[in-house]
Amino acid sequence: MARVYNFSAGPATLPEAVLRQAQDEMLDWRGVGASIVELSHRGAEFMEVAAQAEADLRALMAVPDDYAVLFLGGGATTQQALLALNFAAPGQVADYVVSGHWGKTAIRQARHYVDVHVAADGEPGGFRDIPARDAWVLSEDAAYVHITANETIHGLEYRDTPDVGDVPLFADFSSSIASEPVDVSRYGLIYAGAQKNLGPVGISVVIVRRDLLERAGQPRADIFTYASHAARDSMLNTPPTWNWYLLGLNVKWMLEQGGVEEFARRNAAKSALMYTAIDGSGGFYRNEVAPAVRSRMNIPFFVPDETLTARFVAESRAAGMLALKGHKSVGGLRASLYNAMPLEGVQALVDFMRDFQQRNG
Amino acid sequence: MARVYNFSAGPATLPEAVLRQAQDEMLDWRGVGASIVELSHRGAEFMEVAAQAEADLRALMAVPDDYAVLFLGGGATTQQALLALNFAAPGQVADYVVSGHWGKTAIRQARHYVDVHVAADGEPGGFRDIPARDAWVLSEDAAYVHITANETIHGLEYRDTPDVGDVPLFADFSSSIASEPVDVSRYGLIYAGAQKNLGPVGISVVIVRRDLLERAGQPRADIFTYASHAARDSMLNTPPTWNWYLLGLNVKWMLEQGGVEEFARRNAAKSALMYTAIDGSGGFYRNEVAPAVRSRMNIPFFVPDETLTARFVAESRAAGMLALKGHKSVGGLRASLYNAMPLEGVQALVDFMRDFQQRNG
Repeated sequence: MARVYNFSAGPATLPEAVLRQAQDEMLDWRGVGASIVELSHRGAEFMEVAAQAEADLRALMAVPDDYAVLFLGGGATTQQALLALNFAAPGQVADYVVSGHWGKTAIRQARHYVDVHVAADGEPGGFRDIPARDAWVLSEDAAYVHITANETIHGLEYRDTPDVGDVPLFADFSSSIASEPVDVSRYGLIYAGAQKNLGPVGISVVIVRRDLLERAGQPRADIFTYASHAARDSMLNTPPTWNWYLLGLNVKWMLEQGGVEEFARRNAAKSALMYTAIDGSGGFYRNEVAPAVRSRMNIPFFVPDETLTARFVAESRAAGMLALKGHKSVGGLRASLYNAMPLEGVQALVDFMRDFQQRNG
Repeated sequence: MARVYNFSAGPATLPEAVLRQAQDEMLDWRGVGASIVELSHRGAEFMEVAAQAEADLRALMAVPDDYAVLFLGGGATTQQALLALNFAAPGQVADYVVSGHWGKTAIRQARHYVDVHVAADGEPGGFRDIPARDAWVLSEDAAYVHITANETIHGLEYRDTPDVGDVPLFADFSSSIASEPVDVSRYGLIYAGAQKNLGPVGISVVIVRRDLLERAGQPRADIFTYASHAARDSMLNTPPTWNWYLLGLNVKWMLEQGGVEEFARRNAAKSALMYTAIDGSGGFYRNEVAPAVRSRMNIPFFVPDETLTARFVAESRAAGMLALKGHKSVGGLRASLYNAMPLEGVQALVDFMRDFQQRNG
């Protein structure tokens, strides 16, 4: 059938142009006579793909030279454990600000390695707002402060980078990386699973200030050591080459489209269209996140009851809109509007919402 | 250009039929209107792909029901650290038999977590033979015995499963998994990066006896815990879905071709063709591995000098044979003959070798 509008929270929609190029090159990458997925990671062909992807990502995100960019197998959850292992001394305190499901996950992975201190917690408020910076209780001598830049399930995101003084700020950017300009120099470490805004599933990106790589951290295997990956240009072991390649195609597409400034405009327009439709529905559609921190990427919303929820999912799918069911932990509906989702897709969804309300409101 | 014969040690050649199916489905998986790489890992579509891949791999390898089969991001090197973390108490002794480069790597990853005891070491003999079983010095109360079933760089492999009594035998099968029938029940744990015999890069398979999952191991993050991955059917976090999908296509292809019995025949024929060519060259081509343990998968070989080595690599590539350069740590040449390499490819290589010798011998 024709391509649908895919609102999946991740793995998520990719640009058709990127998929077509991957399709064209599937049996023969640039006349080599083999697929890129069949080539050695240490051969000239893939080394070129890898270097170009890094250069393009650095250009896209304006990554300063004193930051390493790593391309790693394992998802963001793996990085949540590794960052504690690499950057905190055994039992050292680390501050965590919890603004949703993924902030809690970050703590669950790190707590075996660090003395987790919850500096602020949005859960008592039902994760409808991000705790205000002046209410955070930061520790003396914390190894780092960890935040979740965008909460994929609860649908809220930081609209400004919080100031945490001299302690390095670590941020899970899985669902909002490269969706708008970000001053990387404000962070000690940025990590993201690529499968939402940056490209395909199966690869993570870690952007880390190089001086932090000198921290001793905790006893661990070499394969768990960011400094070792950095020293070997992310080829300490066989990396997920095909995923890296597809990420590279996607980053190049983002640059061609106008870079993060252009995606900031598009993402603002797309999310405004959705929130306006929700807020203008007279209460038929609801989103309960505080307007100032509503996510541009993931928009959870609710209809009056579960029967209507199920009907909305089924009818929207029949109308060519995929994966609008909400995460099971919160229920309802959710539309994810990552970089590769065109405005036309959101317009189609908003039109469908209006029609659905007229028939069921 | 036309598809070449790709002798890469991994990532390695894949069946053209598998790549063609992936190509056909790249923009639209079975009429869903989206690529499999864009679909949620928790949706019905991918869940079906994942379950089918597991069922097919279990059938292909005759995996007993009391073994879990895990599909994980991160390569074999990651598993070398995780198996120590999961199955040895802190500081407990574990026995390692070293038969080449990858046996040493396994120790390097594990030594932070276990008291590594080298039960036998082939390095003094230049890794030309696998230490005989009766020369192994096994420990009392070892957590496990670790072997490398096939050494990708040094080109030797176990032709029988060694008997280690009641201690679980753990084996790195990265470069020989599913290349012939193996009695899985003789092993406590089998692990493999998929990018050689099993499918694409970017995913590892771990086959582990379920009772071992009850071992406490060492304090660690949940994401490093095999039992947690097993309990969640390898969806503890977002798995490398596209890689899992391609692995599934490849496993299905192997079943259709006749399963591991058929590949055992093909691999025996292919490697015999190569070794006969080498041994029959009057010393122009050399392979120094003891015949009883010569690898069917990876055949390192040497020509008289480095000038000829470079010429062989360049001319074979021009003749449509890719990646015959040896690993940098041993030099020379290497041909990897995994399941997806057809006999015709090996025949073409052997013909080229004969011609090359006539022109340069």
